[in-house]
Amino acid sequence: MNFLQGIELMAVIANGVFGIMLARSKRMDFAGVFSVALILAFGGGTLRDLFLDRTPLFWIEKAHYPVIIFVIAIVTSFFPRLHGGLGRLLYLPDALGLGLFSIVGAGYALEAGTTLFIAALLGVVTGTFGGVIADVICNEVPSLFRSAPLYATCSFAGCWVFLLLDRYTRLGEPVVLTAGVVTVVTLRLVALRWNWRLPEHE
Amino acid sequence: MNFLQGIELMAVIANGVFGIMLARSKRMDFAGVFSVALILAFGGGTLRDLFLDRTPLFWIEKAHYPVIIFVIAIVTSFFPRLHGGLGRLLYLPDALGLGLFSIVGAGYALEAGTTLFIAALLGVVTGTFGGVIADVICNEVPSLFRSAPLYATCSFAGCWVFLLLDRYTRLGEPVVLTAGVVTVVTLRLVALRWNWRLPEHE
Amino acid sequence: MNFLQGIELMAVIANGVFGIMLARSKRMDFAGVFSVALILAFGGGTLRDLFLDRTPLFWIEKAHYPVIIFVIAIVTSFFPRLHGGLGRLLYLPDALGLGLFSIVGAGYALEAGTTLFIAALLGVVTGTFGGVIADVICNEVPSLFRSAPLYATCSFAGCWVFLLLDRYTRLGEPVVLTAGVVTVVTLRLVALRWNWRLPEHE
Repeated sequence: MNFLQGIELMAVIANGVFGIMLARSKRMDFAGVFSVALILAFGGGTLRDLFLDRTPLFWIEKAHYPVIIFVIAIVTSFFPRLHGGLGRLLYLPDALGLGLFSIVGAGYALEAGTTLFIAALLGVVTGTFGGVIADVICNEVPSLFRSAPLYATCSFAGCWVFLLLDRYTRLGEPVVLTAGVVTVVTLRLVALRWNWRLPEHE
Repeated sequence: MNFLQGIELMAVIANGVFGIMLARSKRMDFAGVFSVALILAFGGGTLRDLFLDRTPLFWIEKAHYPVIIFVIAIVTSFFPRLHGGLGRLLYLPDALGLGLFSIVGAGYALEAGTTLFIAALLGVVTGTFGGVIADVICNEVPSLFRSAPLYATCSFAGCWVFLLLDRYTRLGEPVVLTAGVVTVVTLRLVALRWNWRLPEHE
Repeated sequence: MNFLQGIELMAVIANGVFGIMLARSKRMDFAGVFSVALILAFGGGTLRDLFLDRTPLFWIEKAHYPVIIFVIAIVTSFFPRLHGGLGRLLYLPDALGLGLFSIVGAGYALEAGTTLFIAALLGVVTGTFGGVIADVICNEVPSLFRSAPLYATCSFAGCWVFLLLDRYTRLGEPVVLTAGVVTVVTLRLVALRWNWRLPEHE
């Protein structure tokens, strides 16, 4: 297993845990919790694989991924839901999943031979569309399009850090991948903490 | 035409008829009725074919399928809408389409060589996502995520009945396919009749 | 570059400009504006390419397309938003993008060897689904399903004009493509001007 695959596994777990916590905070039943977790863990990467014509899809090739999500959903169903202030902890797996998936997506795009710009876009798709699809299906305004937390912007910036380090330095794969992930997660948490926004158009 | 293909044709017709009745009950014009019918008849199977990289898509290969939906939409447009209590009849083609498409989806996944767990997931996707996409586009909370009627759960359970019978018995294809379909439809109708729910998380 | 490719480039620009104007009229930030423009410019064609298994996707093969959208979004961000009555100008790039993308989609489907009926459906998908996806993600009732402006119907009719002229006359590619585009755009503008509707079902 190379470093990129390790990051992918962590990304699946981070987004799966986030999905389970999110769905339970909305009082969904087990089928709903499992469905939301699957969509968050596999939605963005599925779009990336379809766009790049990578077959089989990453969660069909690594068929243990959905089983891992299933087991986590079962095990955590014995724990009580997070209440009140603790619910804010949701932003941690969310930011982590955003960072990990964004860089995995950009990395796979590079492997497939795309330009840097396309690789950055596919990183954003991979990092954000699990959440977008889950939000759309649960019928809320997707967070990607609420201007507050700069979701897509953090992902885009971190992808460029990874892509430029990878292209123009001799740092090893683990270093440049980690630098990208850390950039996305840090930007996201800082943006949340100080409520950064992009300027609205006049 | 093998047995699986026969079930697929019935599934297309059941979901198409359901889509037409549903769209007309919402007073859509002909373009809307035809669009909703197409999405219900082909949405779930399209996702499955994309996920499994089956080409051409089933409704492009069997190019008469969309024509059948078109003809049904035209012919039924001369009949009056179902009124009041009769509208409840909608659950019949709905349950039938859910059962038929779920088992077709699981069957195609097996043919493509997936694990049983992945095949069950793809059965659920095939059975439910036509309805999910139609609900999302018509901007209602998708029924898959309303806890009441256990949509995805009925599909998942029936897929496992089919998959386990197929793997561990010597019953012929028609028997195991039919057993799966009957399980899904029965569970769905029973769940509707007695308003079964999964327990909500605490 | 053949004539079909030229129409595709115009379609990308028309839908991109429409997306930018639409997103800015809703006061989105730059990330939102760029995202909506990308979805409108590439959403419908991406579905078509996935359905036809055309690889690489048209905006990955022609990797300058997303860059063009990015540059237009940057440059136009220095101009003020359209106010009041001018906002109605939005229907022009919208109708143009609908017509151009519909015919491009039907043309690519023919190249891939589909039947005429399937080609017409894929023309409608290519022409309309950028808007449908953008509307769904921004959480409004998609215009495709509001009966007023006959979106899908205009696209379907124009595709048939193109397909039948292409099949049964000896007119050159530029003539039949242009005839299809002009039909869609004209129908759409006329339908808007006189508020045509399809009859609602009784």
